Amino acid sequence: MILVNGKPQTQIDISDRGLQYGDGLFETIEVLNGHLVFLEQHLQRLALGCQRLLFPSLAIKILKKEALSLVKNVSRGVLKIIITRGSGGRGYRQPQAINATRIISLHPYPDYPDCFQKKGIKTRFCQQRLSHNPMLAGIKHLNRLEQVLARAEWEDDAFQEGIMLDYDDHVIEGTMSNIFFVRNHKLYTPSLTQAGIAGIMRDFILKAAQKIGITTEIGIFNPEDLLKADELFISNSMIGICPIKTLEKHLFNQNTLTHPLQQQLKQYKLQFL
Amino acid sequence: MILVNGKPQTQIDISDRGLQYGDGLFETIEVLNGHLVFLEQHLQRLALGCQRLLFPSLAIKILKKEALSLVKNVSRGVLKIIITRGSGGRGYRQPQAINATRIISLHPYPDYPDCFQKKGIKTRFCQQRLSHNPMLAGIKHLNRLEQVLARAEWEDDAFQEGIMLDYDDHVIEGTMSNIFFVRNHKLYTPSLTQAGIAGIMRDFILKAAQKIGITTEIGIFNPEDLLKADELFISNSMIGICPIKTLEKHLFNQNTLTHPLQQQLKQYKLQFL
Repeated sequence: MILVNGKPQTQIDISDRGLQYGDGLFETIEVLNGHLVFLEQHLQRLALGCQRLLFPSLAIKILKKEALSLVKNVSRGVLKIIITRGSGGRGYRQPQAINATRIISLHPYPDYPDCFQKKGIKTRFCQQRLSHNPMLAGIKHLNRLEQVLARAEWEDDAFQEGIMLDYDDHVIEGTMSNIFFVRNHKLYTPSLTQAGIAGIMRDFILKAAQKIGITTEIGIFNPEDLLKADELFISNSMIGICPIKTLEKHLFNQNTLTHPLQQQLKQYKLQFL
Repeated sequence: MILVNGKPQTQIDISDRGLQYGDGLFETIEVLNGHLVFLEQHLQRLALGCQRLLFPSLAIKILKKEALSLVKNVSRGVLKIIITRGSGGRGYRQPQAINATRIISLHPYPDYPDCFQKKGIKTRFCQQRLSHNPMLAGIKHLNRLEQVLARAEWEDDAFQEGIMLDYDDHVIEGTMSNIFFVRNHKLYTPSLTQAGIAGIMRDFILKAAQKIGITTEIGIFNPEDLLKADELFISNSMIGICPIKTLEKHLFNQNTLTHPLQQQLKQYKLQFL
């Protein structure tokens, strides 16, 4: 089921700037028993993206109403929201009056084996780098060729995620997740002011960590910092918090901080059960 | 008139990766008396883009046939080709069998006043920078938010083009054009190995210059190099070669090399008249 500006539709105009230039934003939100998990936080990031891309203010009320109508009787799924600058303008120049396109679609929940959450996933470093762009860093915009090329580096299921660096060889994130590492009982995650997407789950984790007395640090880190870590995990809105079992040939088998953070998330989600 | 995979259509599937991730390429080609100017060169760049993005080989024959059918009786216009990775795959992961989407659309020729070609245009430097990405540099892909944001920096018609730098403060190109400058009878244009789109017209100009004995240099240049130039011009497939009259507050009024290069282009296009 897909709604485009409130109407059931499976297609959009070819003239839409979302297609023409990737001129838009998106969110993917977990659906749980008719609820949208972290809905307010997703809408906040979307609103920030609208500001950065000079879109009109987000039609929050309509968006919420349509989103909730789509998931009313859905026990598990993924809701995707896309907002584009709509059609019009001349070349890259935006139209004088922007009529944003609002696309809301419902998808099945991805089939992640349970063992990933418990036993961890296998990961590798990607060759494809993330470029710096402070204006676009943090927001979830539609220009995603870097992630597509990074994810195309492996085809088999030997790895579940690839870790991406920037051109300065600093770790930024996974192709579809944020990354955290633990060393000496302290939790670290890369700064995303130059590149990367500031995950809703990343934000939850940082706050949950502080709540249970874990010291956190957002900084600039090298691949070696990950390889020397005591434990590693990735996060996103669908998989939650997922330990890394291997990064390249390095093995990780501690869960000292990962497990209590997973528990925090589990507890938070009780309200939707 | 728009053809999607050979069929007249005005919309595409929302699931198309062109919309979802900007996962595609495009070309805009001048239509002149039923001909497509520099068609082979545009198709070559498109084919290079397909290689870089790991698309299947371009269906050149079909593409040409459809493109020429659309412009058969058109005296002046613009043909736009978009190739996307089609639908499918899981998240950023591409589908195992890629069914590219082929969109060919015909548009009116943009209304550039004649005086721009003769008297030159007014230009400014953009605040928005171009990020480095050697894998994506040169090709004309659909991730164009940097250009959209740069073009949004001015709304009035006081300027016709903005010049974009990278994050190292080097000049790369205009928002919709390549840039050239002349100093001491030598022609310079920025290297595009890290950022920018390698224009078909840029390539024509470099070859035409050599043909008529102008020394050319592709290099790394600062804004000051442009401001100290004897003459400046921009180029793209629609406007051809267009002198710059002003860049910020600096005035340029020589055409010593610009004019003969414009003549070369005029002569080349005689075959289509």
